[in-house]
Amino acid sequence: MYDETVELAKRRGFFWPSFSIYGGFAGLYDYGPLGVLLKDNIIRTWKESYLCDDAIFLDTPNVTPEPVFKASGHIARFSDIAAECEKCKTKSKLESVLSFNHISDIPVNLEDAKRIVSENKLKCPVCGNIINNVYDFNLMFKVSGDYYLRPETAQGIFVNFKLLNNYNRGKFPMIVAQQGKGFRNEISPRQSLIRLREFNQCEVEAFFDPENLKFKELYEYKKIKIKPNTGGEFYITVKEAFEKGLISSQAFAYFVLKTQIILENMGIKNELLRFRQHDPDERAHYAADSWDAEALIDDEWFEIVGIANRTDFDLKNHQASSGEPMKVKAEDHEFIPYVIEPSYGIDRIILSLLAQSMEKRDNKNVLKIPYKIAPYHFAVFPLMKKENLKEKAEYIYNELKKLDKYIIYDDAGTIGKRYARHDEIGTPFCITIDYQTLEDDTVTLRSRDTTEQERIGINKILEQPFIDSHIYKN
Amino acid sequence: MYDETVELAKRRGFFWPSFSIYGGFAGLYDYGPLGVLLKDNIIRTWKESYLCDDAIFLDTPNVTPEPVFKASGHIARFSDIAAECEKCKTKSKLESVLSFNHISDIPVNLEDAKRIVSENKLKCPVCGNIINNVYDFNLMFKVSGDYYLRPETAQGIFVNFKLLNNYNRGKFPMIVAQQGKGFRNEISPRQSLIRLREFNQCEVEAFFDPENLKFKELYEYKKIKIKPNTGGEFYITVKEAFEKGLISSQAFAYFVLKTQIILENMGIKNELLRFRQHDPDERAHYAADSWDAEALIDDEWFEIVGIANRTDFDLKNHQASSGEPMKVKAEDHEFIPYVIEPSYGIDRIILSLLAQSMEKRDNKNVLKIPYKIAPYHFAVFPLMKKENLKEKAEYIYNELKKLDKYIIYDDAGTIGKRYARHDEIGTPFCITIDYQTLEDDTVTLRSRDTTEQERIGINKILEQPFIDSHIYKN
Repeated sequence: MYDETVELAKRRGFFWPSFSIYGGFAGLYDYGPLGVLLKDNIIRTWKESYLCDDAIFLDTPNVTPEPVFKASGHIARFSDIAAECEKCKTKSKLESVLSFNHISDIPVNLEDAKRIVSENKLKCPVCGNIINNVYDFNLMFKVSGDYYLRPETAQGIFVNFKLLNNYNRGKFPMIVAQQGKGFRNEISPRQSLIRLREFNQCEVEAFFDPENLKFKELYEYKKIKIKPNTGGEFYITVKEAFEKGLISSQAFAYFVLKTQIILENMGIKNELLRFRQHDPDERAHYAADSWDAEALIDDEWFEIVGIANRTDFDLKNHQASSGEPMKVKAEDHEFIPYVIEPSYGIDRIILSLLAQSMEKRDNKNVLKIPYKIAPYHFAVFPLMKKENLKEKAEYIYNELKKLDKYIIYDDAGTIGKRYARHDEIGTPFCITIDYQTLEDDTVTLRSRDTTEQERIGINKILEQPFIDSHIYKN
Repeated sequence: MYDETVELAKRRGFFWPSFSIYGGFAGLYDYGPLGVLLKDNIIRTWKESYLCDDAIFLDTPNVTPEPVFKASGHIARFSDIAAECEKCKTKSKLESVLSFNHISDIPVNLEDAKRIVSENKLKCPVCGNIINNVYDFNLMFKVSGDYYLRPETAQGIFVNFKLLNNYNRGKFPMIVAQQGKGFRNEISPRQSLIRLREFNQCEVEAFFDPENLKFKELYEYKKIKIKPNTGGEFYITVKEAFEKGLISSQAFAYFVLKTQIILENMGIKNELLRFRQHDPDERAHYAADSWDAEALIDDEWFEIVGIANRTDFDLKNHQASSGEPMKVKAEDHEFIPYVIEPSYGIDRIILSLLAQSMEKRDNKNVLKIPYKIAPYHFAVFPLMKKENLKEKAEYIYNELKKLDKYIIYDDAGTIGKRYARHDEIGTPFCITIDYQTLEDDTVTLRSRDTTEQERIGINKILEQPFIDSHIYKN
């Protein structure tokens, strides 16, 4: 479904490559008119879910001064090993050159990479020349004036820890959430929204007393699929996974459960979602434990959320670099908080839910995304472009818009074509104004998912309970 | 009120200087927990208003390749004339050095600036040394790899014009809106949110057939204050201002009216708002006519929205640079569309509405912002931290949160202190759970604006119509 999703996304206006009139630039994508509405709904779903956990929000700049990333370790360590072909000048990630040359040896650092390159005659995947040049390539974008573009939103939260803790009156756990852009100068961006140079993140940094890694109750919920690094892949409840010691703390387990529910509300399918634990040597430089929520598209699993136990790594580093003490006192002991971080990759979530929600009906696409998430909730059609139908349709359109802003007017083509168009962009309901409407003030309400049609009075449609019961409580 | 607003903003968590543990960096500000909620509400107000005009939305990258800004004229012309003191190394905008030296001569270009500097002995405002070094300073941030950070979101819309016009089935006017960040490497950032290096924009590019600069009806609305460049400053209706030729087109007048209403809905005061027309030599390089919506803080007027007629300037430039034809055909003639651009500076709007909404009552701050805009709609208090009151208060808090996410629980300090705290952050209503609540299931509902208190049944509060009538329909 990946190829079809990318094709539909461009044709219908969900997303497309940026700056195409100038030839396009790898790793940069625009959200089109439908994509912006969808993305806003996805972000709102995340935000409201964390508001329910009394999260506090923060918004810090993309442009970030160098000392922050010296402290965080990003300047020293946030890099990929790159390989450049001296003949054709192609730059690639070394790992893809190794894989092209069927070499399974994985370098642990640059020195090791140089050894592998000198021991094997690695061919350039593009021109076949022998590759000699490998080097560390930092993934951060440098900005004029000793700034970098942040590679994650998280550091903006860590450097504000004391101000936030003061705002929160010293209470723990303290859940801080930030939605914004992240930037990585990827050596080889790929697969539309999967590996972007500029991407949308929703990050949560949950600060805990390290001796009390507990949060709200782990309520009973359906079994989810997990793949722990001790082996196996199976369905289990989060509660049981925690009780059996498969997930290391109650707080970590809580965020796994919460993430599962948020993703389902966004439209990710339970059977196409799993939580995979990182192997110890796979973790980021700051993490003590990591689980990825992964979504299946075609035969490939993609990370869409990363949940990591960052311990006190970041706060300790900022304390050492800035001289600002990060220790807090609560319940008669002092500590530097531990951080559990669920980090949501919004672009990948959007790609996954579009790919997983597209179904075929009579050879045509139907995008079965949750009603609340759909770019438009209702489409209003006049049966034909005649003046009396148009006038009535515009009246209903304008009145409905007073109750719900996500309404679209569409008078182009036959009714059948209009149904097909709105099935493909996921509009849950179409409302048609026809000659009978002029006689008895009823319209046809047609459902995306069942194709069923019913006659319904205009007076019933133009009431808040109609919108609520059809869209928001659904 | 400016100083008090900035103090309150930092103390309460609306906004504060970024990266303060590393000493702070000029022109970068964070939104704290209350600021994020407020900003989201401001942006939603803008978005919903434009959805009512059938606007389509777009989201393009901050990181933008060089050819876009060659075409737009930003690389050649988006600069300030800077002056550097060779002794103390202070960099300033030349205009502030001229003003410090009481010189009213305004340079029209760099050559002219050099003449003024050589003819006058300009003293450095910091050390008093004579300044000789003046130069053009481009305000765009350069990013590694031939990119720039966009100085406005608008260009992302222009380069997508053909894709958007296709999405919109060739209909005009076509209203395209984008919310996002802009970046300017200001020589001297100042006054907290007024001149930032990274800022929040909501930009609208309205594309018109140049022979038909008309949009929806100019409905009757109260008189607004205008200051046309032909002289005078007076109250007039937008309709009359258009009919008298003070505003150049019906479409331009429509966006003035719309902007007035949006700003009032956000909390800007009618009597502290005016529309000022630019003098011809004051306009940006792309504009044929410009009006600024300006808000009054203390004795100074600040631009918070700029409305410009960009004509076909940008589309013509991108056509010439990219080779992509921008001409369209509609109603039997061909044209390159004209663009009217209302551009909303979100940070300045937030600063202005906080400053304009702060009132004193018994020597304490009351932030009288519109209910819909407030970070929290309701605060829930247990009278004391006793177990039975706490339990009941938490029940009401959790039930209320199912109806509205913007609820805060507060059990710190006396009730009087809590009222004062929520008056200061603009929470419209406080709900107190006391001993009577345990007997008859009523609570005290207290109003921010009147300080009036009423007993009200819990069953009445926990219903959607209560939320709607108190917050959303208010």
